[in-house]
Amino acid sequence: MSQPDQPHILVLPSGALAEEIITPRAWDVLESLGTVERNSTGRMPTAEELAAWLPRATAVLTSWGTPPFDDAMLAAAPQLRIIGHAAGSIRRLTPPPVFARGIVVTHGADVIAQSVGEWALTTTLMALRTAHTFDRAMQSGQPWSGIKGRWGRELYRKRVGIIAASMTGRAFIRLLQPFDTETMVYDPYLSEERAAALGVRRAASLDELMANSDVVSNHAPTTPETNGMVGARQLALLPDGALFVNTARAAAIDYAALTHELQTGRLVAALDVFPQEPLEDDSPLHGLPNVILSPHVAGATVESRARLGEAMADEFARFFTGQPLRYQVTDAMLATMA
Amino acid sequence: MSQPDQPHILVLPSGALAEEIITPRAWDVLESLGTVERNSTGRMPTAEELAAWLPRATAVLTSWGTPPFDDAMLAAAPQLRIIGHAAGSIRRLTPPPVFARGIVVTHGADVIAQSVGEWALTTTLMALRTAHTFDRAMQSGQPWSGIKGRWGRELYRKRVGIIAASMTGRAFIRLLQPFDTETMVYDPYLSEERAAALGVRRAASLDELMANSDVVSNHAPTTPETNGMVGARQLALLPDGALFVNTARAAAIDYAALTHELQTGRLVAALDVFPQEPLEDDSPLHGLPNVILSPHVAGATVESRARLGEAMADEFARFFTGQPLRYQVTDAMLATMA
Repeated sequence: MSQPDQPHILVLPSGALAEEIITPRAWDVLESLGTVERNSTGRMPTAEELAAWLPRATAVLTSWGTPPFDDAMLAAAPQLRIIGHAAGSIRRLTPPPVFARGIVVTHGADVIAQSVGEWALTTTLMALRTAHTFDRAMQSGQPWSGIKGRWGRELYRKRVGIIAASMTGRAFIRLLQPFDTETMVYDPYLSEERAAALGVRRAASLDELMANSDVVSNHAPTTPETNGMVGARQLALLPDGALFVNTARAAAIDYAALTHELQTGRLVAALDVFPQEPLEDDSPLHGLPNVILSPHVAGATVESRARLGEAMADEFARFFTGQPLRYQVTDAMLATMA
Repeated sequence: MSQPDQPHILVLPSGALAEEIITPRAWDVLESLGTVERNSTGRMPTAEELAAWLPRATAVLTSWGTPPFDDAMLAAAPQLRIIGHAAGSIRRLTPPPVFARGIVVTHGADVIAQSVGEWALTTTLMALRTAHTFDRAMQSGQPWSGIKGRWGRELYRKRVGIIAASMTGRAFIRLLQPFDTETMVYDPYLSEERAAALGVRRAASLDELMANSDVVSNHAPTTPETNGMVGARQLALLPDGALFVNTARAAAIDYAALTHELQTGRLVAALDVFPQEPLEDDSPLHGLPNVILSPHVAGATVESRARLGEAMADEFARFFTGQPLRYQVTDAMLATMA
């Protein structure tokens, strides 16, 4: 039985997801704090199941697929003091009433950002060097005479445009540093001082960024403000042969317009996210030699998965011992966050 | 007609190779120096053709496929003062008598190194993240449920072992910097001071490096000393799941032993060079899911090709105006160079 004033923690990830994200160390930290109830169903609870499970909970460790904490859910959780979301985007999970009730919200976007930055660099380099094409050709036994001579391009000293200095945008910017790139960022919320600290130049407009970049990487959160921001007109501003990389979300980009530019061969792309996921079998993006596809894996590595549970367990430990949190999300922050 | 004391420059690259490596700016620099004779045959001259062409030459711009400057060739080139090799390895081209005669030798290995470093990072990231596998699976229309869940690994904070702090090894080390890797270098010619300046730790032995690296990247030149240096015993020291990257030459590595380790699935590899090139059609390296293959393209980019001719033209300009060269190779340096 739990003590009346002891933390009562529900851990919602179960089965394979729990194995990936909650390491033995994370379990140890959680168990050290108070009563821990594990979800042993092997799947996320439904909204009804979660509501029935919440009454005694003071802390909930959530992840992908957790039902949102809407008014009905909050009514079922009178003791709830902190939500730790072991995943990236939190907007859907915690609507304004969560913050209005004073429930503390923290999340794992920052511990995923390194993986996303690495993926953005991985596919940028692959696309510039046509590395996937060389590997495919070699694996299928094509003669070298036909493979060689189509040289790729270096990243060294290229002009790179970053849409949004978000956590993942900043992770990518850090990795670009030794390539001596001219890095420009479009982000209306980025101050001159922060830009200087990142070693980047602020673009006056998205148009300026698109027209002056050899590589553009999207790191914008899905907010009303970013929806459809990169349309046909903006894509047309990209120089011929430019590379467009998307490791964030699809909603900021007009994929129909992008697909058209890729079908004509004018642009190159590395796309990890799509308007509909999984990508439709009959998508015209399949089979284009100038497109690298991946199934929304930019943030997913063995290491980032393991960091998620540990980061949230550590946040709970800080919260219940009165220390400041590292990854707390406020209502105000959600205006510019996914 | 050339003035008696004016440089007389032969440019051996021809056809497609000349178009790639000798830019309009490089031609302009060369033409500004004296008489320039272009090879218009569309191919490298044979030894006989070259010998017949050399008598009046004071400078020769060479590249891949140029016949070596052996005693017979040197006898045909009484005026020759400088060889500028617009390519990487120079060992085969300029045997000791070239240096004994006081002919100045310079080459383009340094301007290729950035491309090689980028390729080493590209395939390291691809292999760790299994990026090529995701792309292959998506392109062939496999359902996402089967593709996802096999997460790759980050490079962040991994232990990386570099065999030889050569020009390409150092280029790779620079690119690793923001990944916060623990980088160890095996190179008997690397001083403590140079290692500290590079931000790496010197391995006491190749064995120490092999046993303590998550990723090993070979950058050793082909010299009598490095031949067969990484054998079955050294490969067996690598931890399970370690990644072996080779962007240098095959001779330092026992490829039969490496292939065996790859066939058992114990190691992962990204290989750009092979004992026999092109790689034999029936090579067991084909079709292994844990191997990324490429056709000896690590140093080949549009940009590095263009830099080659410009770098050698600029070297000729320095030489004929009495300035110090940037990329001169001495006889002594060849002991530890390819």
